[in-house]
Amino acid sequence: MSETLVDDRQTARPDASEGGLRSRAARLIASSRFEWTIIVLVVVNAIILGLETSPTVMRAIGPALVILDKIILALFVVELALRFFVHRLRFFNDGWRVFDLFVVGIALVPATGNLAVLRALRVLRILRLISVIPSLRKVVTGLVNALPGMGSIIVLMALVFYVFAVMATGLFGGSFPEWFGNLGASAYSLFQIMTLESWSMGIVRPVMEQYEWAWIFFIAFIMSTTFTVLNLFIGIIVSAMQAEHDDLAAEERHTLQDNQASMTSEMKALRAEIAELTRIVSEKR
Amino acid sequence: MSETLVDDRQTARPDASEGGLRSRAARLIASSRFEWTIIVLVVVNAIILGLETSPTVMRAIGPALVILDKIILALFVVELALRFFVHRLRFFNDGWRVFDLFVVGIALVPATGNLAVLRALRVLRILRLISVIPSLRKVVTGLVNALPGMGSIIVLMALVFYVFAVMATGLFGGSFPEWFGNLGASAYSLFQIMTLESWSMGIVRPVMEQYEWAWIFFIAFIMSTTFTVLNLFIGIIVSAMQAEHDDLAAEERHTLQDNQASMTSEMKALRAEIAELTRIVSEKR
Amino acid sequence: MSETLVDDRQTARPDASEGGLRSRAARLIASSRFEWTIIVLVVVNAIILGLETSPTVMRAIGPALVILDKIILALFVVELALRFFVHRLRFFNDGWRVFDLFVVGIALVPATGNLAVLRALRVLRILRLISVIPSLRKVVTGLVNALPGMGSIIVLMALVFYVFAVMATGLFGGSFPEWFGNLGASAYSLFQIMTLESWSMGIVRPVMEQYEWAWIFFIAFIMSTTFTVLNLFIGIIVSAMQAEHDDLAAEERHTLQDNQASMTSEMKALRAEIAELTRIVSEKR
Amino acid sequence: MSETLVDDRQTARPDASEGGLRSRAARLIASSRFEWTIIVLVVVNAIILGLETSPTVMRAIGPALVILDKIILALFVVELALRFFVHRLRFFNDGWRVFDLFVVGIALVPATGNLAVLRALRVLRILRLISVIPSLRKVVTGLVNALPGMGSIIVLMALVFYVFAVMATGLFGGSFPEWFGNLGASAYSLFQIMTLESWSMGIVRPVMEQYEWAWIFFIAFIMSTTFTVLNLFIGIIVSAMQAEHDDLAAEERHTLQDNQASMTSEMKALRAEIAELTRIVSEKR
Repeated sequence: MSETLVDDRQTARPDASEGGLRSRAARLIASSRFEWTIIVLVVVNAIILGLETSPTVMRAIGPALVILDKIILALFVVELALRFFVHRLRFFNDGWRVFDLFVVGIALVPATGNLAVLRALRVLRILRLISVIPSLRKVVTGLVNALPGMGSIIVLMALVFYVFAVMATGLFGGSFPEWFGNLGASAYSLFQIMTLESWSMGIVRPVMEQYEWAWIFFIAFIMSTTFTVLNLFIGIIVSAMQAEHDDLAAEERHTLQDNQASMTSEMKALRAEIAELTRIVSEKR
Repeated sequence: MSETLVDDRQTARPDASEGGLRSRAARLIASSRFEWTIIVLVVVNAIILGLETSPTVMRAIGPALVILDKIILALFVVELALRFFVHRLRFFNDGWRVFDLFVVGIALVPATGNLAVLRALRVLRILRLISVIPSLRKVVTGLVNALPGMGSIIVLMALVFYVFAVMATGLFGGSFPEWFGNLGASAYSLFQIMTLESWSMGIVRPVMEQYEWAWIFFIAFIMSTTFTVLNLFIGIIVSAMQAEHDDLAAEERHTLQDNQASMTSEMKALRAEIAELTRIVSEKR
Repeated sequence: MSETLVDDRQTARPDASEGGLRSRAARLIASSRFEWTIIVLVVVNAIILGLETSPTVMRAIGPALVILDKIILALFVVELALRFFVHRLRFFNDGWRVFDLFVVGIALVPATGNLAVLRALRVLRILRLISVIPSLRKVVTGLVNALPGMGSIIVLMALVFYVFAVMATGLFGGSFPEWFGNLGASAYSLFQIMTLESWSMGIVRPVMEQYEWAWIFFIAFIMSTTFTVLNLFIGIIVSAMQAEHDDLAAEERHTLQDNQASMTSEMKALRAEIAELTRIVSEKR
Repeated sequence: MSETLVDDRQTARPDASEGGLRSRAARLIASSRFEWTIIVLVVVNAIILGLETSPTVMRAIGPALVILDKIILALFVVELALRFFVHRLRFFNDGWRVFDLFVVGIALVPATGNLAVLRALRVLRILRLISVIPSLRKVVTGLVNALPGMGSIIVLMALVFYVFAVMATGLFGGSFPEWFGNLGASAYSLFQIMTLESWSMGIVRPVMEQYEWAWIFFIAFIMSTTFTVLNLFIGIIVSAMQAEHDDLAAEERHTLQDNQASMTSEMKALRAEIAELTRIVSEKR
């Protein structure tokens, strides 16, 4: 596994001719031992952050955990500084390095004011596991890459949501301010309805008590979003299968074409022999 | 993008020979600048309609928004009039133009009586974004075109709903008038049950307290609609994949057939040469 | 359409030599006019049964509707009798004729005692629309035919349900008799949980208040049934696509093989010519 | 069916030369009569365990059922002992035999203390039906084999759950201890939210009353898990179809290649004949 861990970082290594500190740093961050150290640190950090949620554990060994957490955070900062030292501004070319910078950086923001929220976001650091383990990175990259091809459907979905949210606010906002009081509340309620959670018993039946025809609005919404989501899914499935299929079909085609090529060359040889025969016969004449 | 925006409107342009005002209008509505103006107007209109849902905003700049909204509406009317002037009655051949006419026309209906409802429907104008942006138009056309192939399953679904709604009204209408009091109420409740929302805790368990065997009816309904919907989805998935696959397969087949054709012609040349050789040998006799 | 309506009933026609009343009846039931009459009767019957659910309509024209309903029922009985007269015992070979017999027969059972239930079942007659319209019949036949291939998964599903129902009854039956009091109640509750309706808030959280570890049981159940249902769906999707694909692939293969066959025959001709040439040359020797 | 039941146990039979008691035992457990006996015993046991859930039945024939159950259990123990006698330590090579040992072994654990739970687990014995009926065994093996290929996605899912559970505990644990009081409670609540059960009305709306921005957290969670689960499903579908497709494509390719091979050999024969002809002509010179 150490092999795979290294591969796509090789390119980041500066020219050997540059020598000195920087090239040694480059060799270090490309080494599998370094990668494994990071993985272990992330996993240990994950366990620490998990333990910190338990008041009993905190009362017993809280200070030790907090210090260990700070040490690991410091090591991450050093690691990222090292990477920046090696890649300089090309550091920002790789989305995963920016991701690492972001999730580590969050923990450095001084946690005053909305303390709980910022503390909670520190946990995002565990997501570094995705960027350090190649197979996870591959899966997530695959998911993210599937999105642009679905751009039109996502825009369509946003449009449908916006139109229905504006309409719902205008129609039901007065009577049901909690659900449809403003654009945001409407969009949230419509999202809930799209997931079909309590859409009828919780929302539409109460609304229908005041507006008898409300079912038309909501069933139209459910139908159109379900259909759009269905198409989003079909798009992803079809493109996933197409990718698989293309590889295979290309292989098959090559085999067949190779065979045909060998037959064609066989036939060319045949023609050459006949030409020779014709020459012999003609000469004899 | 301006290129793609124009393409399928080209055909609507009247013969250049016709000259005069009409051909100039045709050139105008086919220009990418015109298309982009419409897109910008729709987006601005969308933002205005969104802002109008906020009482705070309305109190501050309400009148300005209303006037701007009316101006944009007027521009849409002028645009559609222009299109009608160019296409005359062929205007109605393109479903998307009829769609535009409909969503713009709604805003012109005097909003007396059920004011709120008609005001809400004005928001549908934002859906013009679908008809002006080619990629969205393509997606929606794709969704709509998938429907006729599913005609039988939709009829079957309607039949299942009707049969179960009539039965539910007859069986449970007396005891549960709110849910199954008439055909409409039953159909709505069955739709809710089909989406599985609160079907058991909310509807079937209370019904079973009076009619112990009610679960047979509802589970039969859930099974049959789930199975039918599943088949609807599979139909759409299969036809989507088939379409993709056909294009690819056709391409592959052509390559293979081209190869075979070149081999066949090679072989024909061979036969010709042998025939020539045979002629030479025979002549020598 | 009249053509398609007839086709698969042609085979049921007795030999022309048999003559007389029976062959005339056979010709009648195979005629498209007859088929259309039945379709119209079923649709009219559907409307009548729908109208009968409305007390207002019943008060106004109730008796007329009831008489019309009885006339149509009588016509259906005559039709089925005619079919039986033509096919004799082979009548039972076609599943759809048995289906017709069943849904018409229900209405003839004297509706005493559990009146409402039997009356409600009369509505099943509308389902005859499936057996008389070929495209609907085809869709339903497709759905039903997909089932046997899924036999193993359905048996597996039944087994999982049985095991979990027995366990749930033993574990939670004492404390929650309404949900898990006996095998039937447990199976119903598990079905509800499988559809994910109120599974947590409605059932599992209350159960967990008494049995803390209950989540293990229910999450294991949800995981295993979701996974099994997923496989059932995948099986149906894959076999549906395979069927489509096979047709296409067979066609493609034929084209390619035809090409290869023509090349092979071309090559045979070539060999024959060379053999002739060799004969000529040898003779000259 | 008896044939299929036997096949994959054949290999377990020790060499005929070994003779004596062990080889006779091997022949016995490989016989279809033996397999059928086990199937019948499992089914009878399933019925008994089902009947034992009914207090009425237990009052009437309880002792008889308990004795019958114990007899069948004893027979299972004898059967497994026989299998162990035949296979010795290779007994543990087959996962299904270990499964059998586990589900039978549970019933032998003395049921003191948490009586109900251990009694309930005895029902798992019915799952032996999976290991004795080949078609069920095949389906389950298929399901289980699909998992490793999905390893990365499952790890990703676990990671997402862990990160969100830690965050939820930190953010909402204080105010909603019942739902997010500790890591376990949070993970359970998040699982419930992932299945979309009462996620909004039951959990998120109450939480939003205290933390207005909570919808960001929960919608991010729903989006990311839905997307991951979707990819898990697509992965399984694609690999299932690929497996089907590969078989077919291989077959097709073989036919085409066979044809090409026969054409190539035809062509070789042709060359040989022409070489012969050339030799004849040359000799004549």
